Amino acid sequence: MRATGVDKPRAVRASAVRARATRGGATRARAAAQGIEQEVKIDAAPTTLLREGSGEEGDATQMRARFEKMIRAAQNEICDAITALDGKPFHEDAWTRPGGGGGISRVLQDGNVFEKAGVNVSVVYGQMPPEAYRAATGEEGASKEMIPFFAAGISSVMHPHNPMAPTVHFNYRYFETDAPKGSAGAPRAWWFGGGTDLTPSYIFDEDVTHFHQTLKDICDKHDGEFYPKFKQWADDYFMIKHRGERRGVGGVFFDDMNDRSKDELLAFATDMAGGVVPAYVPLVAKHKDDEFTPEQRAWQQMRRGRYVEFNLVYDRGTTFGLKTGGRIESILMSLPRYCEWQYDHAPEAGSREADALDAFKNPRTWCA
Amino acid sequence: MRATGVDKPRAVRASAVRARATRGGATRARAAAQGIEQEVKIDAAPTTLLREGSGEEGDATQMRARFEKMIRAAQNEICDAITALDGKPFHEDAWTRPGGGGGISRVLQDGNVFEKAGVNVSVVYGQMPPEAYRAATGEEGASKEMIPFFAAGISSVMHPHNPMAPTVHFNYRYFETDAPKGSAGAPRAWWFGGGTDLTPSYIFDEDVTHFHQTLKDICDKHDGEFYPKFKQWADDYFMIKHRGERRGVGGVFFDDMNDRSKDELLAFATDMAGGVVPAYVPLVAKHKDDEFTPEQRAWQQMRRGRYVEFNLVYDRGTTFGLKTGGRIESILMSLPRYCEWQYDHAPEAGSREADALDAFKNPRTWCA
Repeated sequence: MRATGVDKPRAVRASAVRARATRGGATRARAAAQGIEQEVKIDAAPTTLLREGSGEEGDATQMRARFEKMIRAAQNEICDAITALDGKPFHEDAWTRPGGGGGISRVLQDGNVFEKAGVNVSVVYGQMPPEAYRAATGEEGASKEMIPFFAAGISSVMHPHNPMAPTVHFNYRYFETDAPKGSAGAPRAWWFGGGTDLTPSYIFDEDVTHFHQTLKDICDKHDGEFYPKFKQWADDYFMIKHRGERRGVGGVFFDDMNDRSKDELLAFATDMAGGVVPAYVPLVAKHKDDEFTPEQRAWQQMRRGRYVEFNLVYDRGTTFGLKTGGRIESILMSLPRYCEWQYDHAPEAGSREADALDAFKNPRTWCA
Repeated sequence: MRATGVDKPRAVRASAVRARATRGGATRARAAAQGIEQEVKIDAAPTTLLREGSGEEGDATQMRARFEKMIRAAQNEICDAITALDGKPFHEDAWTRPGGGGGISRVLQDGNVFEKAGVNVSVVYGQMPPEAYRAATGEEGASKEMIPFFAAGISSVMHPHNPMAPTVHFNYRYFETDAPKGSAGAPRAWWFGGGTDLTPSYIFDEDVTHFHQTLKDICDKHDGEFYPKFKQWADDYFMIKHRGERRGVGGVFFDDMNDRSKDELLAFATDMAGGVVPAYVPLVAKHKDDEFTPEQRAWQQMRRGRYVEFNLVYDRGTTFGLKTGGRIESILMSLPRYCEWQYDHAPEAGSREADALDAFKNPRTWCA
């Protein structure tokens, strides 16, 4: 299977769902959002969010279970590090779905250092339209049966109070689709994706370099081509297209990765998730008590408005989640606690705000 | 032409553009946003935003010119009324496009009564993909030529400071598409659309009734079936589908109207635009100095976050504008000055906030 081909199901599906939602009223839109069952809140996170028994058969590498174990360990590690910095614990919500799967959201809101920090893990058993599967695989066929898919991932956004301390986002995910009914034995499609990116309001060169260098060192351990390729991909992906500017200074982003063994890709995703704390936490520790002016706070709030524009209009995970009936409060956990819009704002030439905007419009080289 | 058919071009086009934008990087997305030329700022609003000469030929009813005249008069009248209430004038920006068309944005920001109020008029000469035209008309053909379209409209959102004073939105528009190349003489498609809707944070029954009754009285002058039909349409349209709640208490909404003469529809749109001041301004005058608590302000700010969710994810005008390269600051003028998100917020049972949320989830009958 071509790596670029596997991206199509999501693009095709999202646009098909959107077209239906645009033409129809609320009822039709809710009917279209049938890919994921309604979640059921549970009192405490279970040992595993995976289905028991036969649902996991045919997974010779046990990748579903290994990936879930990895993202749950990462969730613990990152929440512990953020709580140590903030002094306030995360609130946890857990849920399951009748047909299997579920999630654990952890949110720290109105903390001492963070306005809003969330770290989610989720496991989803959903349904994909067959034309999406065919577009991905190039297979012929006229089946109208929905194709089951499996997705597991960790995703997180953390917004500190201080305008000198940057926002971070990361997401690592593993995706599988079943073979369509009637073509038993056809190989499953699978891929890994993810990324970690930084959104400062003000640029401190040494901080951005530290962030990128930490990610690059991890990439280089796995493949020397990863960092340059994934840095470029992040610069392309985190683009607020209608403004011609990125939401921040990027980092790494990759998707549709299946050009090497699952073991190798799991090892890479594990190391990348493990890189979040060393890449990010020192930057917040350094700036959490910096002095700032009301004007600097307003600039941060406007940049958070841009973050909202990116997430609601372009972010794949968010737009996919909103259309398919995922747990809304977990999906929109990424939105900032506060933000603002000023009509036609433009930073003064030569200001620090202008420098930041320039970095968002013209991506820079942060490490060699 | 079927009235329901004419809606399809926009749905089809938006989803096609989105699919391309989702798969491609920033460059491809910008290339896709070719429907509208880059605007050029001008010093003062011109007498007309229409093309001179032949561009307006074949418009026997002179509807383009008459509609522009109507929306520009409405812009003046409404801005005058808002300035009289607020005490602060609107800032005006005007622009044209090389191939014709342009717009006038008026914004009042950080006023005495309004946090942000904007009233835009615009005239657009754009291009629509031929498959969108064919989907609308049912015509056969394999032409790959883009179909020219014309759109003129007024749109406005006004967000007061006081949480007891509601937000209003209205938009009235006239739309034409040319016949495709090679089928000269085919009739042009045209339609009218629009609406006026109210978004309070707190429900005052008599206020909402006044608002709806004012709109209903205008509708009834034109057709007794308009208000019930368009009230329902607003309840369906202003839905934040992923939350199962509307952004406010609705009003009227209609689209694809071409089931009677252009003269009749212009008269209706004119009266509806003229209804904005009497329907809305008294509500703000009444509540602009109401006392409120920090908790009530926070609830208002959260509802403004919901407004952002609706506008960026569902609003046809906004999503169409962002994808086709319209003037961003005018399109996003509708976003509030400030807003916030709280994780998993739910109003206390029996509270005024719970009452408002109930009205957003379960539309009420405001006038008989």
